[in-house]
Amino acid sequence: MGDFTHLNEEGRARMVDVSDKEDTKREAVACGSVFMKPETLSLIKEGRIKKGDVLAVAQVAGIQGAKRTSDMIPMCHNIFLSGSDLSFQLDEEKGEVYIQAKVTCTGKTGVEMEALTAVSMAALTIYDMCKAVDREMVISNIMLLEKKGGKSGVFVRK
Amino acid sequence: MGDFTHLNEEGRARMVDVSDKEDTKREAVACGSVFMKPETLSLIKEGRIKKGDVLAVAQVAGIQGAKRTSDMIPMCHNIFLSGSDLSFQLDEEKGEVYIQAKVTCTGKTGVEMEALTAVSMAALTIYDMCKAVDREMVISNIMLLEKKGGKSGVFVRK
Amino acid sequence: MGDFTHLNEEGRARMVDVSDKEDTKREAVACGSVFMKPETLSLIKEGRIKKGDVLAVAQVAGIQGAKRTSDMIPMCHNIFLSGSDLSFQLDEEKGEVYIQAKVTCTGKTGVEMEALTAVSMAALTIYDMCKAVDREMVISNIMLLEKKGGKSGVFVRK
Amino acid sequence: MGDFTHLNEEGRARMVDVSDKEDTKREAVACGSVFMKPETLSLIKEGRIKKGDVLAVAQVAGIQGAKRTSDMIPMCHNIFLSGSDLSFQLDEEKGEVYIQAKVTCTGKTGVEMEALTAVSMAALTIYDMCKAVDREMVISNIMLLEKKGGKSGVFVRK
Amino acid sequence: MGDFTHLNEEGRARMVDVSDKEDTKREAVACGSVFMKPETLSLIKEGRIKKGDVLAVAQVAGIQGAKRTSDMIPMCHNIFLSGSDLSFQLDEEKGEVYIQAKVTCTGKTGVEMEALTAVSMAALTIYDMCKAVDREMVISNIMLLEKKGGKSGVFVRK
Amino acid sequence: MGDFTHLNEEGRARMVDVSDKEDTKREAVACGSVFMKPETLSLIKEGRIKKGDVLAVAQVAGIQGAKRTSDMIPMCHNIFLSGSDLSFQLDEEKGEVYIQAKVTCTGKTGVEMEALTAVSMAALTIYDMCKAVDREMVISNIMLLEKKGGKSGVFVRK
Repeated sequence: MGDFTHLNEEGRARMVDVSDKEDTKREAVACGSVFMKPETLSLIKEGRIKKGDVLAVAQVAGIQGAKRTSDMIPMCHNIFLSGSDLSFQLDEEKGEVYIQAKVTCTGKTGVEMEALTAVSMAALTIYDMCKAVDREMVISNIMLLEKKGGKSGVFVRK
Repeated sequence: MGDFTHLNEEGRARMVDVSDKEDTKREAVACGSVFMKPETLSLIKEGRIKKGDVLAVAQVAGIQGAKRTSDMIPMCHNIFLSGSDLSFQLDEEKGEVYIQAKVTCTGKTGVEMEALTAVSMAALTIYDMCKAVDREMVISNIMLLEKKGGKSGVFVRK
Repeated sequence: MGDFTHLNEEGRARMVDVSDKEDTKREAVACGSVFMKPETLSLIKEGRIKKGDVLAVAQVAGIQGAKRTSDMIPMCHNIFLSGSDLSFQLDEEKGEVYIQAKVTCTGKTGVEMEALTAVSMAALTIYDMCKAVDREMVISNIMLLEKKGGKSGVFVRK
Repeated sequence: MGDFTHLNEEGRARMVDVSDKEDTKREAVACGSVFMKPETLSLIKEGRIKKGDVLAVAQVAGIQGAKRTSDMIPMCHNIFLSGSDLSFQLDEEKGEVYIQAKVTCTGKTGVEMEALTAVSMAALTIYDMCKAVDREMVISNIMLLEKKGGKSGVFVRK
Repeated sequence: MGDFTHLNEEGRARMVDVSDKEDTKREAVACGSVFMKPETLSLIKEGRIKKGDVLAVAQVAGIQGAKRTSDMIPMCHNIFLSGSDLSFQLDEEKGEVYIQAKVTCTGKTGVEMEALTAVSMAALTIYDMCKAVDREMVISNIMLLEKKGGKSGVFVRK
Repeated sequence: MGDFTHLNEEGRARMVDVSDKEDTKREAVACGSVFMKPETLSLIKEGRIKKGDVLAVAQVAGIQGAKRTSDMIPMCHNIFLSGSDLSFQLDEEKGEVYIQAKVTCTGKTGVEMEALTAVSMAALTIYDMCKAVDREMVISNIMLLEKKGGKSGVFVRK
């Protein structure tokens, strides 16, 4: 186990200095799920088939979330994102909306936080838009699936 | 099951009109957890005992997240929050940081999204500050525990 | 013609003091149009019929814009919005996407700037999403249609 | 006519991946106008001659708007701007404040949205600061005049 | 000396709950100064007489800063401001730009942080706009002058 | 004395064009102090020793402030920061919390405004968290200590 990189000498938080890191092409994929009543999922699905709205708004929230990650997560670097995309999968039996986000950049720091924030924002937006019909939804399994680029190389979650 | 309240006549999203709702005292409590390797949790704990930093930064991120919920969640109303507080519990056996957030307001809309966003931001911040030592952390079980005030009355999760 | 209300004694800008205004229910409706090649409009329309995306994203941008008006327009008061909604009309012959936004609040200041900003943000988003196929689009006719509430009473554009 | 670049496979919005684009010097010029009663324009003009305020505030709003474009326009990339400038021309006969904005960057994406957003924010600010004396102002003719840099080369509006 | 109100039971920061405070009319006045070379001050002054720009931009920055205080200061409540105004005084002998900001609201919390943030943002903007000619400017004496409203009553600095 | 670089031909503010500047490694160090009653300082100190909170929150506010400088200071470029760190020194005799911030970037513009903003935000946060026990605190001596990189070379305050 390495050291915590966000603690300075006095043990207080800092934004780690990445001046000496190289600009490389980086990519991160994260995922997460919103679990709900099957009836809630059906409503989203019908909505989606007809006009696609709950997921369309969640998509926008996820992309905006990726761009604003450094605004929300205190020690994150503010970076230029090359691209950001989300996709959704609905599993009616489990009552699950599965969210996946992929973020890319060319820079000195990875984009895993941006991918994880995109997933979180999309999940919270789904919650917000469905909460009038289902207050017991649960957001779970938010995690990093894959990460490429930078000194630490490729990470793929088993 | 009621109707979706965020879809307007064309089926597109809108911020529902709450003009006719009364200003009442409202409160929401949400929770969530970050699961990690026991070694990672130990590092946080030692850090916390000595200088408290990972959780201190997560706390600030959670409170800032509560205030900026309407900025991030598209259909959320921008509201005046009366108060916002987070607490953390560490379970070394499970490798779990349990996060609880309580948000209050006096207004026309509930604050469950603010409480859920506070938990999410604190969880993402913990991930960010520990990711150098543990990339396989998972954020789970983000949910509403309790909600008071407004026409829909008291909700307590079973 | 009255006086400019945003100039203080030295002639510099200020946010006018509304402490003594009453909290009343207020509403504003604004509109505007994006003019484009008929082919561009057809692409939006087909998109909308199939999956509705250009206008769905514009809708979200408009609602977010309404909420963040005071952030962008220097002398605007930051206010609690009760509701915010947009609608779109497509005129294929004129190659026109007509945008209308309605914003409501209960407070000390009107919401015309919020409605106008919502329209502007929706229009810019339509431009952004279509600019790869049509760089000569023009955003025009952004104006206030109606305003209710407050001391100045009802305004309806002729 | 090309394809829409913001729609992903499911037809939902995404921030297009520009990882493979080269960093080039880019520039965009946009314009727009606020039309008002001649008396309103005279008031601005006198104000401008004496203390310059309405346009000074609009100028700041335009520059801030350019920097915050990606915050407001959902699919826009967040980029580093090299420079941003606005100028105004007053035509008393037409009752027109003509706004022109020029934005530059060195990067992977163009800055037309930044220039158009700068113009829109300046126009909305002029509206805001003069609305007490003239509620019937109209914002029109917001368009791209010129664009340089990047693969698509030079665009000049005819 | 009272207790710190921002520390919760675990000693971590929280946004204090003001649910039970009454809505009262509140006002705060703060001040601060930027000290510089007399030549720098002359340049501002000449600029101000001719076109007023350094102070005009500082004024906008101050007002925007007041509105965004809760975004920047972690434990501050987000509140509706009724009004916000700044004034400047130039003392050529001392090479001093004296800044005063007055902020008002009707609400449950005071606005001293908003007034102090307005002064700070105006001061930083003056620094930014003059730093090409004078890097040794010093920002000093930022303090609360007066505060009215709320349970703690009137405070006037001696 | 050089010219003001933020005034365009009409004497209005602009964001100066840095397209032709080279990307170099840059660094800035700024400082400032909050002066308070010795009892207030003791409370912070005891808090810091036990649970470290006032300074921990100020640290986060400072780092967030550095990242959001261009949002707050109108003519500042939005830039990618490589790193950001703050440290604090307590002098009980003088009742002084001394704040120092160091910010680094690789880019076309310096980071002195980011360092000065970090110090200001940390100072305002200390004020906010202690104002319940001491309303007469004064923020002073905010200044640039050191600056490296870029055409203007090294600056060290005497």
